[in-house]
Parts: sequence; structure tokens; C-alpha cells
Amino acid sequence: MAKRLIPSLNRVLVEKILPPSKTNAGILLPEKSSKLNSGKVVAVGPGTHDLSGNKIPVGVKEGDTVLLPEYGGTEVKLGEKEYHLYRDEDILGTLHD
Amino acid sequence: MAKRLIPSLNRVLVEKILPPSKTNAGILLPEKSSKLNSGKVVAVGPGTHDLSGNKIPVGVKEGDTVLLPEYGGTEVKLGEKEYHLYRDEDILGTLHD
Amino acid sequence: MAKRLIPSLNRVLVEKILPPSKTNAGILLPEKSSKLNSGKVVAVGPGTHDLSGNKIPVGVKEGDTVLLPEYGGTEVKLGEKEYHLYRDEDILGTLHD
Amino acid sequence: MAKRLIPSLNRVLVEKILPPSKTNAGILLPEKSSKLNSGKVVAVGPGTHDLSGNKIPVGVKEGDTVLLPEYGGTEVKLGEKEYHLYRDEDILGTLHD
Amino acid sequence: MAKRLIPSLNRVLVEKILPPSKTNAGILLPEKSSKLNSGKVVAVGPGTHDLSGNKIPVGVKEGDTVLLPEYGGTEVKLGEKEYHLYRDEDILGTLHD
Amino acid sequence: MAKRLIPSLNRVLVEKILPPSKTNAGILLPEKSSKLNSGKVVAVGPGTHDLSGNKIPVGVKEGDTVLLPEYGGTEVKLGEKEYHLYRDEDILGTLHD
Amino acid sequence: MAKRLIPSLNRVLVEKILPPSKTNAGILLPEKSSKLNSGKVVAVGPGTHDLSGNKIPVGVKEGDTVLLPEYGGTEVKLGEKEYHLYRDEDILGTLHD
Repeated sequence: MAKRLIPSLNRVLVEKILPPSKTNAGILLPEKSSKLNSGKVVAVGPGTHDLSGNKIPVGVKEGDTVLLPEYGGTEVKLGEKEYHLYRDEDILGTLHD
Repeated sequence: MAKRLIPSLNRVLVEKILPPSKTNAGILLPEKSSKLNSGKVVAVGPGTHDLSGNKIPVGVKEGDTVLLPEYGGTEVKLGEKEYHLYRDEDILGTLHD
Repeated sequence: MAKRLIPSLNRVLVEKILPPSKTNAGILLPEKSSKLNSGKVVAVGPGTHDLSGNKIPVGVKEGDTVLLPEYGGTEVKLGEKEYHLYRDEDILGTLHD
Repeated sequence: MAKRLIPSLNRVLVEKILPPSKTNAGILLPEKSSKLNSGKVVAVGPGTHDLSGNKIPVGVKEGDTVLLPEYGGTEVKLGEKEYHLYRDEDILGTLHD
Repeated sequence: MAKRLIPSLNRVLVEKILPPSKTNAGILLPEKSSKLNSGKVVAVGPGTHDLSGNKIPVGVKEGDTVLLPEYGGTEVKLGEKEYHLYRDEDILGTLHD
Repeated sequence: MAKRLIPSLNRVLVEKILPPSKTNAGILLPEKSSKLNSGKVVAVGPGTHDLSGNKIPVGVKEGDTVLLPEYGGTEVKLGEKEYHLYRDEDILGTLHD
Repeated sequence: MAKRLIPSLNRVLVEKILPPSKTNAGILLPEKSSKLNSGKVVAVGPGTHDLSGNKIPVGVKEGDTVLLPEYGGTEVKLGEKEYHLYRDEDILGTLHD
């Protein structure tokens, strides 16, 4: 059974949103049709401490759609699914419709 | 449909102002007629925390025309438009008429 | 007799959980069947001090199952058993069923 | 029309004082007759924050004649004029008659 | 006569515990029979100051058996005996029976 | 006319004391007769801010004879005279008869 | 006449204690008979400031016998005598009989 991960400190567990490489009708899409590197936040850590001992909460929350940097992040496999861990400060922003 | 990005921390989303490469009358301008690398601020993050836990707001605001450094910034494509993300401290200043 | 180690500062002593390389019935498993690099926390240090002199306790506790980074950690042999020491901030998160 | 730049944070906009390369009477001066790399402060930023969240104002003000480091500074062209941006802490001092 | 060293700041003077290379009965032991790099704390410094001016005492005390990192430490010879100086934060932990 | 320089922040303007290379009687001295790299403090900056926003005054004052590091310092020419700018913390100490 | 040096900040002026290379009776000693790199403290600076603006006094005092690191220190010649300047934090400890 897949385990559940609670990230440490200001880490954020993200499930990447993969652009469809084929349309529903089965037509192959050119590889670079979508350059937006985004993901869904699955879990966030409790935050870090500043130099005065106060907690700094993580800036994103579960369910957020986030814009990710092109490089970085740690691949994590839980059960059959692949996730990525990012530091809070490496997430570029949140995406909204 | 194009998504809207809310930058994280002290990040600033900028739409670059491209110098016209042709005049209205269709005359090609020499490539280096404008060396000013500027942009329009589209969205700003909530700011960062100082070491005592206080928020430091971002120094520019939506709608500002900003002077950008020659290098740096992260390219982001939202819908058909290209934007760039900068850290607050990398923006050189604001431009006024 | 094996000695007991109390880690210093924010160090965490971890016993790695090795994926079984053979099933109970004696069938050899392919080497990469499990990519999850996890361990059991055996002991934690008293934590570090922030710049104002306050203690920052370690974020994990004895008995936690933790997700470990692919690289890093210091190998320690106590008696016949092998352990690894990690800095609190290098532990990626805790795993739960 | 030339735009006006308000520098960000502790940046200082400087118009360099170029040593005359010809006297009024039209006599060419040897190139190294003046080694003083100085400029006039045209605009200053609002300052930076210290780690406790207090503003640190910029140490020079508009109109000051400043001694500049030999290297560094970012070239900025506003209208037909060339300026340089320096960080407050890179300015070596102010010059007085 | 051997001098006594009082370490400065958060330095710790350690006498390394060398694994016996021969049993009492004179049988040579294989060189890697003990991989535990440990030592006895002989003297500790008064500690360092945090950024608010408070003393941070050293985390180990005289008489402690400590686990040492594989590399680092400064060799010191007092009289005929060899010691090693470590920074408090480089000591991996304390060993207990 | 020579301008007067007020150094910025914790910078110190120093006029180097050159060892005489000839005695009054005209006898040439060997080049390394004096290895002491010293100077006279001509002007000091207002000091820097610590992280809590307090001013830290410069540790030397006008008229002090200071011991200078072998390397470093920025050469400044005011009028016909050559000076050197040092950061407060790079000055090794003050010399007294 | 030899000048007197008052070190700046947390600098410490040390006169190295050289091991005798010949016994009183004129017998040459092997070069490495003493590996202890020690010195006598001749003068100490007033200390540095922590990030809250408090003075941190130097940890050693005039007359102390100190253990010195193998490398580092700045050679200073005052009159005919050679001294070395060390930062407070580079001194390994004090030696006592």
C-alpha cells in the first residue's frame, strides 16, 4: 500500500501536471505544446523557524496549483505514483483560472 | 484559457516592453535604437519575512513600469503571452514620465 | 556490547529500512523494485540554538519512519548494526501508513 | 521624452563626471590627467530593511558628488543620457570642495 | 612537564580511543575490526556567543565519550600525549554503555 | 584645487607613511629597511548599521597612525596626493610611540 | 624606537615562543622536538560587536600563553621584534602549567 508523506520543515510535496501528449482522439501532440511546468500540492511541511524562533508557515497549501522551476525538486515514489519535493521558496507562484 | 499567476514570496511577474522594431510607417529601426530593458508589473507576491518574522512587502506594485537587469529572470508562458519572473531585489527601479 | 549514541545538536540517528532483495519464498526481486530510501529514527539530538539563543527542537522523534535524501548522511557502526546520522534539515519528511 | 528613474532599495543613480579631454582653447589633454572616478547623484532609492524590519536609508542624497569604484555599476540609458546605478555600499564616499 | 590546554570558544579537546590492534593474549586483530572513531573529552571551551550576545555553552562535557567525524580536528601534542581539537558542532554525539 | 573626501559607511581614508629611501645626508637606504606598512588616518566614514539598525562607529579616528594590511585598499588620488581607502575591519591596529 | 601596537577589533598580537634549537650546553636538538606552536599574548583589541550592537570582548588577555593554529596569522615587525596578529576566534586555546 502507498504510504503517505508529511514533508519536513518548508518542503512541499507536488504531483506534477503532465501535459497530454496525445489528444483524446489519439492524435499525437508536438512535444513542446505546453511549456508550463505546473503541479498540484499534495502535502506541505509545518514550516521553518526564523532567527528569533518564530515559525514561518509554508506559503502554499494542499490543493494549490503551483508553478514549478524548470530544474530542482527531489523525485519521490510513493506506491506507484511519482511526486516531487520542493522547498517552499523554490515554488514560483500559484496558478488560478 | 490563460491562467493567472500569483507570484510567491518577493517574486514579481513582469511583461517586458519590447521596443518597436518597425515604425508605424513600416520603416525598420536599427536593432539597438533602444537599450532600455523595461517591463510592466503584472502581479507581485506577498513579500518575504525578515529574521524577526515581520513581512517585508514587495517594493513595486501592479502597473509599475520597471527597469530590469540585463540578465536573470525566469521565463513563464501563460496562455499565449510570455512573462518574466524577477525577485523584488533584482528590479533596478521604477520608470516615470 | 553495543554502545548507545545520543546525537549532538540537530542530528538524527536512523536505521535504514532495506527493501527485501528476496521474497519469503526465495524468489530474487529485481534490484530496483523499491526506490523509497527510508529509515527508522533511533535517536535524536537535543536540537540547535537560533540566533536569539532559543532552542530549536528536532522536527522528528524516535520511532518515526523518515524519508531520506539519496545522498548524504554519515555511516555509524554501533556493535554489529549500521546506522546513519542525518542533520534534521536533511530529512525529507515522515512516512505514515 | 526621457523617462525618470526612481532606483529600488539602496540603489543610487549616478551621472558620471567625465574629465574634459580637450581644454576650452581646444588643446587635447593627455588621457590620464584625471584619475578621479566621480559622479553626481541624480536619484536615490528608499533604502533597504535590516533584519529587524527597520529601514536603512541610503547614505548619499541627490546632488552629492560621489567617488565611485573603478569597476561595477550598471549602465542605464535614459533618453540620450547615460547613467550608472550603484548599490549604496559600493559608493566610496562624497567629494567636497 | 605537559601543559594543560583550556580550549577557546566552542572548541573541545579530545583524546582519541584507539581500538586495540592486538588482544591481551597477543593475537593480532584485523585492522578494521572497529570502525568507531571515538574519544574521551579532556577539556571544553567556555562556548560561543549568539548574535544577541548570549553565551551558547558547549554541548559536551569533560569525561564524555564522543563520536568523532572521520575527517577534521586539529592535532595537538601536549607533553608526550596526542590530542585532537574539534569544534563543538563537529562532534557527532555522545556514546553511552 | 584638491577636493576633500568624506568616506562612506565604515571606510577610512589613509595617507600611507612611506619609509625614507634616502637619508637626509643623501645616503641610499636598502629597500627593505622598514617593513612596517603604516599610514595616517585622514578621514573616517560615519560607520555602518548592525542588523538591529544601530550605528557601529568606525574604530579609528582622524590623526591615528594605523597598521595596514599588506594587500587591499583602494587607491584614491585627490589633487596631487595619493591616498588609500580601507574598510574599518581591514585595519590591523593603531600604532603608538 | 619600537612602536606599540593596539590591535583593532578582535585581533590579538602574539609573540611566538620558539622552541630552543640548541640546548644550553650547545647540543643541537632535532628540528621537530617540539611541535607545540604557542605564543605569548602581547596586546588584544577592544573586541567586536554582535548583530545587536553589543561588544564581544576578546577571549584571551595580555600575558596569556596561547596555542596557535599551524597556518594563518599576519606577521608584524615592531622595532627589531617579530610578532603575529591573529583573530580571536583563530586562537585554539590557552596553555597553563
